[in-house]
Amino acid sequence: MEELVGLREGSSGNPVALRELWSPCPRLRRGIRGGLEWLKQKLFRVGEDWYFLMTLGVLMALISYAMNFALGRVVRAHKWLYREIGDSHLLRYLSWTVYPVALVSFSSGFSQSITPFSGGSGIPELKTILSGVVLENYLDIKNFGAKVVGLSCTLATGSTLFLGKVGPFVHLSVMIAAYLGRVRTKTIGEAENKSKQNEMLVAGAAVGVATVFAAPFSGVLFCIEVMSSHFSVWDYWRGFFAATCGAFMFRLLAVFNSEQETITSLYKTSFPVDVPFDLPEIFFFVLLGAICGVASCAYLYCQRTFLAFTKTNKLISKLMATSKPLYAALAATVLASITYPPGVGRFMASRLSMREHLDTLFDNHSWALLTRNSSPPWPAEPDPQHLWWEWYHPRFTIFGTLAFFLVMKFWMLILATTIPMPAGYFLPIFIIGAAIGRLLGEALSVAFPEGIVAGGVINPIMPGGYALAGAAAFSGAVTHSISTALLAFELTGQIVHALPVLMAVLAANAIAQSCQPSFYDGTIMVKKLPYLPWIRGRPINSHRVIVEHFMRRAISTLARDAALEQVVKVLTSTDEAEYPLVESTESQLLVGIVQRAQLVQALQAEAPARASGQQRCLQDILAGGCPTEPVTLTLSPETSLHQAHNLFELLNLRSLYVTSKGRAVVYVSWVERQHTGF
Amino acid sequence: MEELVGLREGSSGNPVALRELWSPCPRLRRGIRGGLEWLKQKLFRVGEDWYFLMTLGVLMALISYAMNFALGRVVRAHKWLYREIGDSHLLRYLSWTVYPVALVSFSSGFSQSITPFSGGSGIPELKTILSGVVLENYLDIKNFGAKVVGLSCTLATGSTLFLGKVGPFVHLSVMIAAYLGRVRTKTIGEAENKSKQNEMLVAGAAVGVATVFAAPFSGVLFCIEVMSSHFSVWDYWRGFFAATCGAFMFRLLAVFNSEQETITSLYKTSFPVDVPFDLPEIFFFVLLGAICGVASCAYLYCQRTFLAFTKTNKLISKLMATSKPLYAALAATVLASITYPPGVGRFMASRLSMREHLDTLFDNHSWALLTRNSSPPWPAEPDPQHLWWEWYHPRFTIFGTLAFFLVMKFWMLILATTIPMPAGYFLPIFIIGAAIGRLLGEALSVAFPEGIVAGGVINPIMPGGYALAGAAAFSGAVTHSISTALLAFELTGQIVHALPVLMAVLAANAIAQSCQPSFYDGTIMVKKLPYLPWIRGRPINSHRVIVEHFMRRAISTLARDAALEQVVKVLTSTDEAEYPLVESTESQLLVGIVQRAQLVQALQAEAPARASGQQRCLQDILAGGCPTEPVTLTLSPETSLHQAHNLFELLNLRSLYVTSKGRAVVYVSWVERQHTGF
Repeated sequence: MEELVGLREGSSGNPVALRELWSPCPRLRRGIRGGLEWLKQKLFRVGEDWYFLMTLGVLMALISYAMNFALGRVVRAHKWLYREIGDSHLLRYLSWTVYPVALVSFSSGFSQSITPFSGGSGIPELKTILSGVVLENYLDIKNFGAKVVGLSCTLATGSTLFLGKVGPFVHLSVMIAAYLGRVRTKTIGEAENKSKQNEMLVAGAAVGVATVFAAPFSGVLFCIEVMSSHFSVWDYWRGFFAATCGAFMFRLLAVFNSEQETITSLYKTSFPVDVPFDLPEIFFFVLLGAICGVASCAYLYCQRTFLAFTKTNKLISKLMATSKPLYAALAATVLASITYPPGVGRFMASRLSMREHLDTLFDNHSWALLTRNSSPPWPAEPDPQHLWWEWYHPRFTIFGTLAFFLVMKFWMLILATTIPMPAGYFLPIFIIGAAIGRLLGEALSVAFPEGIVAGGVINPIMPGGYALAGAAAFSGAVTHSISTALLAFELTGQIVHALPVLMAVLAANAIAQSCQPSFYDGTIMVKKLPYLPWIRGRPINSHRVIVEHFMRRAISTLARDAALEQVVKVLTSTDEAEYPLVESTESQLLVGIVQRAQLVQALQAEAPARASGQQRCLQDILAGGCPTEPVTLTLSPETSLHQAHNLFELLNLRSLYVTSKGRAVVYVSWVERQHTGF
Repeated sequence: MEELVGLREGSSGNPVALRELWSPCPRLRRGIRGGLEWLKQKLFRVGEDWYFLMTLGVLMALISYAMNFALGRVVRAHKWLYREIGDSHLLRYLSWTVYPVALVSFSSGFSQSITPFSGGSGIPELKTILSGVVLENYLDIKNFGAKVVGLSCTLATGSTLFLGKVGPFVHLSVMIAAYLGRVRTKTIGEAENKSKQNEMLVAGAAVGVATVFAAPFSGVLFCIEVMSSHFSVWDYWRGFFAATCGAFMFRLLAVFNSEQETITSLYKTSFPVDVPFDLPEIFFFVLLGAICGVASCAYLYCQRTFLAFTKTNKLISKLMATSKPLYAALAATVLASITYPPGVGRFMASRLSMREHLDTLFDNHSWALLTRNSSPPWPAEPDPQHLWWEWYHPRFTIFGTLAFFLVMKFWMLILATTIPMPAGYFLPIFIIGAAIGRLLGEALSVAFPEGIVAGGVINPIMPGGYALAGAAAFSGAVTHSISTALLAFELTGQIVHALPVLMAVLAANAIAQSCQPSFYDGTIMVKKLPYLPWIRGRPINSHRVIVEHFMRRAISTLARDAALEQVVKVLTSTDEAEYPLVESTESQLLVGIVQRAQLVQALQAEAPARASGQQRCLQDILAGGCPTEPVTLTLSPETSLHQAHNLFELLNLRSLYVTSKGRAVVYVSWVERQHTGF
């Protein structure tokens, strides 16, 4: 069409005709131009969001890599200081402890002074936001700085504090996603749209995990499992796209910085591919899953109890209220003193970084067998070739150190989670799980030193495989997710243990899910954030419960023909944020919703008219400028509990109106559904 | 409490007291008994479904394995016959072709004679069922036999027909799931519950994929992507559980049958782990993805067009209507003649089974480099040590055979999909994708024979990696799913190519999704099954469309006070399955739904009373025993298109009522939403 218009202009006006003459092959050129136009439109149509998702992934990868790079330098400086400071025990102790204590108290003080939201991992709050609750300012870009600086300080303490970066990275990534979403709506000039916003946030969460672990698959799945109970395949595709961009960029930077030859996984293992495990070992893998499940229940219970204790104990809560940095410093002193290498730290491999912990635990040799006849020395420095020697002690052997590591880290991690500063708790849990698995694996390799003979070939038992399964099972049980199994494979670059690891994770989840709420749900409960309880898998008779059984009957409606005095009376006697508007006091037919704030404003503007003694009713106010919103969806009293629950989950709603024969009889919201006891 | 009752009885009656004396440590015993009781309750509570899911997984694994085992024998017998029949070309040709022709015509005739539903893969129909449409008898257990026998015959033809088993297995598995679901509801004595049924079907679909490929992760994800647009994390967990049971059992049987030492993946590869690919190769991987995307568009277009052609062409449609086995036999003759090894089959490695095709294509050597100086002989039998020699021809080289294979298989697969018999189309597509990747990989290995030098080490290019990426990208593009990347890793047991494969799949999907409907959606369209169009990613202004713009205004309501004559008039003039019941003709307040069938029945029972001349209205009929159902959910005319679409998808509904001020004004259903053009 455009071309036709151009031609007609060309035949009437001279300059265009001249141009036509000058350019050869007008048809071909037109064809090419049309093709390009089509391509542009196509790209732009598909594009829109995709560009933003790509930007999100690349940005987060840059931030993640830059943080890793800077932290590597800082940690190296600390190690250098500790090494060079001389042999005096006091000096060495001070150099070991003062550094993390200073960092932690700064991290806590700085981030808390800017915003109180920046503490913790942020995932529980994000879960609440994605379920439809508005947490004011939680995703403001100004919190970004506080979280980045605080997190950097936390991570710079290395393995003394033993904390990770997944949770805060998810939060950071969602903040950027929310910001980009706002930019997008502004550039397009589109009205704010809630479902579009949520799509962006879900993708952001996936990018957060993917840029920390370079694991796009498990990043997306982990976020979905942890954050929501329903999701659309559309969100999942967008998440994949953004996560892949992020993970690729993150690993690309490592290649550019000559850290590695090519793009590979983060914690590469080298398990033999042919016979990685023998069939009877499956039993031990499932047993390991069960052990991890029980351990996770114990951990979740203790963690929640201790967190509640710090809120109720007078001394601690006073300390928390007045000077958070002091509490942080005290806790950090305890943690750093215990990990002091020449002291107790000797028995828990505290000279290794968290990355080295994982690398050594996934090692495919059996340490117990290797150290059976010869005992390796304890070098002044961890030997890069034999990092696992750190786990060995001549008197306590491998088993002693692993068990001691587990017992100590168990309560140390619980203590660390109470410090109010940005920190992730996933990686430490993953490492603890790996240590549980390693312990079982080493025990098995000693119990069956010949390995399990199958088909005439002797296959030694690999404790590394158990460490992998333990890490996936324990972290899966604590977070109530199954995708940690996939994360374990993506992290190590090998998937030979697919079935045993998956079975261990399922066993651990079966125990944990039936006994304890997940780490994130537990935190939501302790922090008293609103949440929607889980009703699937509850007794069968819950299917018979209908809305009528639990709806709130006493609601205040505003009739269009009500006198203003009546309206004011309703407004002053209740404090709802919105009121259902009905046709008339008599008919009670639901016609819309009025926001309290807007109604109050309209009433105030009306005040002079009222003073003049005129008898006016609500309808006049509404006609005079107070907007009403339509009720897009109503339930009936016969709707089942499950159906109502589904609607709340899918549409991220917090309340719905129930009508019977058109009458706005009642109202259901989250609180009511909790009262039903299902 | 029970124990207390027991004690009281014990103190009053003698025998119980005696028993108490005889048994030592009553407290301990009571404690243990209580604990066991608790465990039993716990297990039973969690159990319920889980036992059924486990049964489902184990059953399907047994069927899958038994089928593989039997087919292996049959295929071996065919090979033996072909080998031993002598050197006469005619006899050899007949032994090669008659066998598949007979099997295919039997498969087609047998399965079609029992039920016409049993043809094809079944996934398009399942997708329709899961979106809420009722297809009568489609999941009846009596179809099971037809599908199993038909599929066995199809698969027994080996690589001459080049068809797989994924789709039919998903169908079989869903049939068993539906059957088990019915058993469950009967044993528990619970009323039929639609959401519970759907949960079971989704798990069944996942089990189907998992028991074919022994890949639980991708089984679950692939089903979700292909079958639905929304899903709940709860379904995903159940799917994982069932799929893991199935995959474990499937591989366990292989170990028990001494086929392998331990549980490993199906198509084990041995790519080097350290530098599997070099950074610049990422570009070629993405290019491969784009090529696969374009190829998939061509394939989907041709496939849909040819399928439509067979339905419109008079000759073929007449043949199809009168004698399907004849059509099947004709098509099979063409396919078998082309693959005859001493003929054209020589150039397309037709002596290899489909399993061997994949095994050779994933080989980690470069055939082009290996055959550069020496040309391997063409053995009388495929050499088990050098199966890939089948791909080589001295004159055409590797490239010629691979290209010829692609061109021929492209149209041969399209022809094979038109044969009305149970067959899966996923595996052939996967293999064609692998061949595309291999072709590019071999070309690159010739173009850069030194490999790409990085960090002083020479890394040869591995065409096997490209084959992996090509398989995932092409099958992902054809089915519009991303989880095929994960499937490639689970099948090969290696995940070293994680990022490049994922990027290729994303590139292929970006092209395919923006140009063509997926294989399954295309089949749904050609078969004219009902479906819900996809509205995400459509123009932004679709967010402004509200229900009022597309709702159906002319609906027939039945008023409670309507005279029976009026009711009969409405019933005879329209043919809806259900009618909205309103309070009165005047008020039109929606109060419930009446089923047409039940109303007609009640009216017939009422006929004598009517004959007596009494003036009765609808209300009397309803009071006399015709049940009404409540309307659990209503929309308002202001609900947005997206919100309505979400509801239809999540709740698997086909229609909803729209009320305005309580009045049953209109009705929205699938058809209306298609008319909006969004």
